[in-house]
Amino acid sequence: MPAKNPTACLLVIGNEVLSGRTQDANIRFLAVKLGELGIPLREVRVIPDIAQTIVDTVNEVRAKYTYVFTTGGIGPTHDDITSECIAAAFGVPWEPHPVAFARMEAAYKPGDFNAARQRMGTMPRGAALIDNAMSVAPGFQMENVYVMAGVPRVMQSMFEWLAPRLEGGQKIESRSVHAFGLPEGIIAAGLTEIQGRYPEIDLGSYPFYRPTGNGVTLVAKGTSGADAEACIAEVTALIASLGRTPIPGEPAE
Amino acid sequence: MPAKNPTACLLVIGNEVLSGRTQDANIRFLAVKLGELGIPLREVRVIPDIAQTIVDTVNEVRAKYTYVFTTGGIGPTHDDITSECIAAAFGVPWEPHPVAFARMEAAYKPGDFNAARQRMGTMPRGAALIDNAMSVAPGFQMENVYVMAGVPRVMQSMFEWLAPRLEGGQKIESRSVHAFGLPEGIIAAGLTEIQGRYPEIDLGSYPFYRPTGNGVTLVAKGTSGADAEACIAEVTALIASLGRTPIPGEPAE
Repeated sequence: MPAKNPTACLLVIGNEVLSGRTQDANIRFLAVKLGELGIPLREVRVIPDIAQTIVDTVNEVRAKYTYVFTTGGIGPTHDDITSECIAAAFGVPWEPHPVAFARMEAAYKPGDFNAARQRMGTMPRGAALIDNAMSVAPGFQMENVYVMAGVPRVMQSMFEWLAPRLEGGQKIESRSVHAFGLPEGIIAAGLTEIQGRYPEIDLGSYPFYRPTGNGVTLVAKGTSGADAEACIAEVTALIASLGRTPIPGEPAE
Repeated sequence: MPAKNPTACLLVIGNEVLSGRTQDANIRFLAVKLGELGIPLREVRVIPDIAQTIVDTVNEVRAKYTYVFTTGGIGPTHDDITSECIAAAFGVPWEPHPVAFARMEAAYKPGDFNAARQRMGTMPRGAALIDNAMSVAPGFQMENVYVMAGVPRVMQSMFEWLAPRLEGGQKIESRSVHAFGLPEGIIAAGLTEIQGRYPEIDLGSYPFYRPTGNGVTLVAKGTSGADAEACIAEVTALIASLGRTPIPGEPAE
């Protein structure tokens, strides 16, 4: 990956993924969407609802990556502590956001905008809002940290709003080929040579076990579609030279 | 969670999860299984196949958690670098493991145990093997670091072998109740009070959006089943006091 592309880190905040209660659905969605924007996801951390852990982790990764995205912990309940932790990480007050607070107050019936819901309109001072079509409660941005909901359909709505506003890099191009009945141990040496000739390409080897048969998929990724194409052409020839049938693309599920 | 229970960190090593090519299936499996052993998973990191990142991350987390589990990067191809990185993290040579190497040599037909496959029998000096029923190539343990395959069915087979050999703590007990048509913002204040009365219990609030209807699930987790039970009994009464019907357990998918 060229150094000039921006980088991203995702913090999945919440005990529910760590306890196994919830199957995470946000990592893959954001990984794919960020790749399309040329913002490769370089790290994901899943961390619990513990204030000091959130504060320390945010401060560590926001210094390290171009973009930090967080999901989870911005609802109205006692275990939703992401917002105040972001304020603490930036050393700013956590206070009613003038726009968000007024918008939420107007959206609820009189008396329904209670203390718990007011927490969702309370943000680090200086936060910029991240709108979404699913909920009146917005996410927010503080410098390079983008704070989003954990519920996948709300998070996705927030990210859709956000995507055209992010400064991306060169799109990550991907080309792949697969073969049935080909053990990784047979193709490994040839792959090492090909990878050596394409230092700008990430060439990945992924064995699969499918009802239709076992085999291996080779994936070339990089900002140059031409390089990814040329790399996979060499892998395709390698597969043929090993007496297997190269099949373009990924195998069907 | 009582401090006396051991803790765990999972490192998911590999570009395929970060690129979105692969939907991770290992986090939830290990989260659930470790919870059953009384070894709460406290952090997950997904990191790329970059040697220095792997070495630094392993050294950081092995000092911080009772157990570290890694998945991915122990196959025969050029992008499988976990094993040598673990050796580097521990400052020991990476060399043929006498038992693993001999076992693999015997399993392959003469001439098939090539250089790429020999890498899978090469380990940090002093590694203890983690067997599995799926593959002749074992995982391994170095002190508190357990190195497993990334392919879910191989990883699961390794963990099954490993589980009875891990020193666990008190099992994490879980009780839950849900209600339809109950916004989190309505129940939040009552939950805060209940959480305050059960400091040893993690009380989580999870909104759901299902074809059968929207609502919220409340989950109490802790090492005391009696406390979890009592906490959820209070939540159940709270739901009823808000005019909704409390339903024990999690809502159907």
